[in-house]
Amino acid sequence: MTGQRSDARRNYTHILAVAEAEVAARGAQASLEQIARVAGVGSATVRRHFPTRKALLEAVFKQRVDDLCDRARTLCGEHDSRAALVEWLRELLAYSLAARGLADVLSYQPLQDEATPDSCAPAIGAAGALLLRRAIDDQTVRADITIDDLLTLIVGIALATESYTDPAEQADRAFRLVVAGLGTDPLGSDDG
Amino acid sequence: MTGQRSDARRNYTHILAVAEAEVAARGAQASLEQIARVAGVGSATVRRHFPTRKALLEAVFKQRVDDLCDRARTLCGEHDSRAALVEWLRELLAYSLAARGLADVLSYQPLQDEATPDSCAPAIGAAGALLLRRAIDDQTVRADITIDDLLTLIVGIALATESYTDPAEQADRAFRLVVAGLGTDPLGSDDG
Repeated sequence: MTGQRSDARRNYTHILAVAEAEVAARGAQASLEQIARVAGVGSATVRRHFPTRKALLEAVFKQRVDDLCDRARTLCGEHDSRAALVEWLRELLAYSLAARGLADVLSYQPLQDEATPDSCAPAIGAAGALLLRRAIDDQTVRADITIDDLLTLIVGIALATESYTDPAEQADRAFRLVVAGLGTDPLGSDDG
Repeated sequence: MTGQRSDARRNYTHILAVAEAEVAARGAQASLEQIARVAGVGSATVRRHFPTRKALLEAVFKQRVDDLCDRARTLCGEHDSRAALVEWLRELLAYSLAARGLADVLSYQPLQDEATPDSCAPAIGAAGALLLRRAIDDQTVRADITIDDLLTLIVGIALATESYTDPAEQADRAFRLVVAGLGTDPLGSDDG
């Protein structure tokens, strides 16, 4: 039994490693059949571990999402709550530009995810909401902004520039426009 | 010869009609093989008319893009240049939310399109740039904003809310944040 379980665990780890490489190369549209082929297992085995494409992508991005959530908690200790929020959004954008498919995972409708609080979008939303709450309490960001508004724009910038050879510059320009819309400090002292 | 040409024309029109239905149902990822099957022609015939997926999508969205370009020219006649720009961006967002796949087409990197000025993204960019130019000249919008910045955000909002059952509300909230970032009138007198 233990042997079977550790076999299954090795299988899972192996498929996940292959999936990570495929998603890095092809983004969220990576083929499950191709993953099965490269991993040397049947499609049914891939599907047993990852019943949906979303489940597979959630697993692929779990570490990055955990890192971003940790980062949000750390930034909550910074004195300047607005700068902390902007810095975290900037890091979220950088992750989304660097990791093909992450923005797709984060674009799943929040409501659909409520039943599975472990999944990426709600985890990122909850982490970012802490930073936004502090900035609103400090009256450094408009009180009518929600974390979903900000995630829509950050994820959207990553998706809209996905076909760019080098998206960083255009993404940064659009990002600054979002920051200008946060409500105070429109000229963006957070440039550093 | 004329007969052959009109046959080819009918073929093109028929394939395009099938493609429009498939793209409406499945978005930019619509399968070329499925389009060929439904149209009752070979994949090679589809590819002769539309050598790339992008070429097919450009054809599917040509009328909508033409309409949006006409609309921009009309709005250039409005007195309030800022309101005219915001109204056009709002209509572009509404089109992008309603027509699956349009946002994908508009997200192609502008530079890659320069050689083919008829294609969607440069046409929309040129039309929107007229409205932005007027607003900047009137000093009702920050002078450092480019039309590509705005298109990145509008297209991004549509892409980021694509999985939503009803994206209109979240898209509108994000849109208002973009408008607030335009630089003047941050509370948005253009709400109407």
